[in-house]
Amino acid sequence: MDLNSDLGEGFGQWTLGDDDALLGVVTSANVACGFHAGDPVILRRVCDRAAAAGVAIGAQVGYRDLAGFGRRFVDVEPDALTQDVLYQVGALEAFARVAGTRVRYVKPHGALYNAIVAHEEQAAAVVRAVAEYDRTLPVLGLPGSAWLRLAAEAGLTVVAEAFADRAYTPEGTLVSRRLPGAVLHDAGEIARRCVAMATGEPIADVEGGALRLDPQSICVHGDTPGAVDIARRVRTALGEAGVALAPFAP
Amino acid sequence: MDLNSDLGEGFGQWTLGDDDALLGVVTSANVACGFHAGDPVILRRVCDRAAAAGVAIGAQVGYRDLAGFGRRFVDVEPDALTQDVLYQVGALEAFARVAGTRVRYVKPHGALYNAIVAHEEQAAAVVRAVAEYDRTLPVLGLPGSAWLRLAAEAGLTVVAEAFADRAYTPEGTLVSRRLPGAVLHDAGEIARRCVAMATGEPIADVEGGALRLDPQSICVHGDTPGAVDIARRVRTALGEAGVALAPFAP
Amino acid sequence: MDLNSDLGEGFGQWTLGDDDALLGVVTSANVACGFHAGDPVILRRVCDRAAAAGVAIGAQVGYRDLAGFGRRFVDVEPDALTQDVLYQVGALEAFARVAGTRVRYVKPHGALYNAIVAHEEQAAAVVRAVAEYDRTLPVLGLPGSAWLRLAAEAGLTVVAEAFADRAYTPEGTLVSRRLPGAVLHDAGEIARRCVAMATGEPIADVEGGALRLDPQSICVHGDTPGAVDIARRVRTALGEAGVALAPFAP
Amino acid sequence: MDLNSDLGEGFGQWTLGDDDALLGVVTSANVACGFHAGDPVILRRVCDRAAAAGVAIGAQVGYRDLAGFGRRFVDVEPDALTQDVLYQVGALEAFARVAGTRVRYVKPHGALYNAIVAHEEQAAAVVRAVAEYDRTLPVLGLPGSAWLRLAAEAGLTVVAEAFADRAYTPEGTLVSRRLPGAVLHDAGEIARRCVAMATGEPIADVEGGALRLDPQSICVHGDTPGAVDIARRVRTALGEAGVALAPFAP
Repeated sequence: MDLNSDLGEGFGQWTLGDDDALLGVVTSANVACGFHAGDPVILRRVCDRAAAAGVAIGAQVGYRDLAGFGRRFVDVEPDALTQDVLYQVGALEAFARVAGTRVRYVKPHGALYNAIVAHEEQAAAVVRAVAEYDRTLPVLGLPGSAWLRLAAEAGLTVVAEAFADRAYTPEGTLVSRRLPGAVLHDAGEIARRCVAMATGEPIADVEGGALRLDPQSICVHGDTPGAVDIARRVRTALGEAGVALAPFAP
Repeated sequence: MDLNSDLGEGFGQWTLGDDDALLGVVTSANVACGFHAGDPVILRRVCDRAAAAGVAIGAQVGYRDLAGFGRRFVDVEPDALTQDVLYQVGALEAFARVAGTRVRYVKPHGALYNAIVAHEEQAAAVVRAVAEYDRTLPVLGLPGSAWLRLAAEAGLTVVAEAFADRAYTPEGTLVSRRLPGAVLHDAGEIARRCVAMATGEPIADVEGGALRLDPQSICVHGDTPGAVDIARRVRTALGEAGVALAPFAP
Repeated sequence: MDLNSDLGEGFGQWTLGDDDALLGVVTSANVACGFHAGDPVILRRVCDRAAAAGVAIGAQVGYRDLAGFGRRFVDVEPDALTQDVLYQVGALEAFARVAGTRVRYVKPHGALYNAIVAHEEQAAAVVRAVAEYDRTLPVLGLPGSAWLRLAAEAGLTVVAEAFADRAYTPEGTLVSRRLPGAVLHDAGEIARRCVAMATGEPIADVEGGALRLDPQSICVHGDTPGAVDIARRVRTALGEAGVALAPFAP
Repeated sequence: MDLNSDLGEGFGQWTLGDDDALLGVVTSANVACGFHAGDPVILRRVCDRAAAAGVAIGAQVGYRDLAGFGRRFVDVEPDALTQDVLYQVGALEAFARVAGTRVRYVKPHGALYNAIVAHEEQAAAVVRAVAEYDRTLPVLGLPGSAWLRLAAEAGLTVVAEAFADRAYTPEGTLVSRRLPGAVLHDAGEIARRCVAMATGEPIADVEGGALRLDPQSICVHGDTPGAVDIARRVRTALGEAGVALAPFAP
């Protein structure tokens, strides 16, 4: 099983999250590439440390929107979006190379992640960027999204993720954050659900039914001290359950 | 002989120079990488066209200063400058790769170009970026600069350039733009000087003496219609003089 | 009658349109405020010259999107949009004050202009910014838009504009740019339509019917040499028809 | 006596310092204006709260350098710097106005603050911006700086500040941060020094001599939890010593 998390999301003088702590927990680091967060100094440091820790480096590509942290939809034209993604992946690749490794996968961030669940044109634009850059590069995302469907149709390797701390509907989609109970906070419960996901067992959906997710990667958060503690708890529980942790990308 | 020029220096809605015209003249394109000019859509287009035209793609790296077009000195810390250069080279590399080629050399832009003539720490920082990224990548710049000296000391391939339209002192340095006669405007004279430079003959320095420059590349401008005409005249004159034109970088 | 046009839309080294020529044509200048275009040096120059020419200065506020020139919708939260508008109006006000005048009105730009025709939350957010800043400041926009309706409901002075070079449907809405004939190019026809609009006469809608628009301001463009010529032609025709030209805002 | 501190120095998703805590300590808030830090949402919130707390709002103007937090010198041309300052002051003024108050003074930030201690052209450029904007606006800065000298020569009101936690040379200049002992950390000692400064008593310079500073404002920091505690301690000590605290700007 793979654990992924967002890293490198500071900018200049500003920090966000505890990258060093997360690099001791996850097996795949979604590294911000400078458009919604991340600057060259941060990219360098995260790539060096991820490489040293054996954590796979992924390109966490986003809209060009520092002020909004990539969390607001931008109706960018598909062709421009393709080039925006290529630019970000290439920039990160320089640091991965210098660190002795490579960018191993692509995972969109924030509003772009959400948009390409259903926005076919933008989803296709991001797929095109990856396919043009390197057809062997896996893409990470939400099962059932246009993003993963179009990527698979384009011959890319798709990797489905589940969220450690989110409630799911009986259909296997995420419960909207606007609804109560959408985000789980109990570390023990979160850890137990992750172990279930990783061992092929069902979890409880929001209505109490049994739901099997079978993700290839589990996304944990690290932008608060509590979140890092939960991520550590998940890692420990997986280890105790005999689940081997390794990056999905070789 | 190689002819180089700055390309891709628009941004978003804004254009600057006539990239298509220049790609019919030069053998090496110094492509802006997004920090002082250039956006992903522009980088894509210039790289695609340069590759199709057999023009070598170089990374024209600059300070992170869109508002100042990279023309004002920024006292950025050397370590941050190294990462800024890596970021820019990597971003451009993505487009070069997609176009079926690679970034072939690095040439700093504007105030950074001027600063590292003498600013040892910033010069060393840019050298370090290139050395870390790819030790086989040539660097292009001003003879006698700290930039080329430190690059050579670091084992990089250095390529000296001369300026087609600038007056030189008897010592072979550029006449300051603040002095009269610093910039030449007569297309015929410029073309004759370029032929002399390319065939090992001396040109006249600003005091009328004979000066041999022996550049490996000649820099022409293209940001005005008149400049493009001069660049074309230079190319034609070199061809008529039997000077073969080819990128210095393989 | 008032003639308005977009000015100050360069950035740094980049220019767009011929501000000086337009200041000899229009009575109201929609000055870009730095979020989609415009930088402080440009704002200063345009405000100084507009004030000297007796042209009213309006705040052409846009999304924070230099790379997209404010032409792509950004799903910014209404509260943030209110503050973005206040920031832009305030910045422009400094230059208007130094030039001995004031910001006289507000007109949204590009994708924001288009969005708030129907996007109630964003329209209300921009209205709120103006109402908080100065309730006496008129707002300029499209008749029938949520923007003008909500502004009127908030007690603001609303000013309806018509476009000199756009075709209209029988209902008085703009023909989509995707349809043939949406944009008029014949200078004589454009000038005649403007005279009709300014004198209470009907123009021909896209189906040939008679349509009365009764705008309080006519928008002309100036981002190409041809556009400036058309704008001059409109001004001349209005003068010859005895239509007095003056800013709508005192 | 006035206590000033930097506020509003977050950006987008990123926070820096504890604005709310500081607004309970200081009498003057140097509010970042968006060029080195601060975004419209932050400016709005800080201005609203400062106004409610009776804290004077000052424009903390900086170089246009988000990535460097305004801490690196930028060799911006004086005319452009004047317009950059006007832009920032105007933007902040909008939020001050909406909060029912006005921008009360100008204090440069970071590398600009340091540069205009000696850089005559940039100092003059900032002075010109204030003089053009509002000749009654006081300027805050370092005694002996070109900034305060040129401002006084231009007829502006100058306000000299001292730093609560910095060591001084016998000549009354700051001990360089590169030297040991440049920054004081003992809250009690800092508070005692502030009381001395505020009551006309000498403090100990770095060599142990007696030094009278007579500042009109004391600058405290708030970007770490420890710094806020020290600032509170200073305020309490001044209160216990019978020093009345009030903004220097009416």
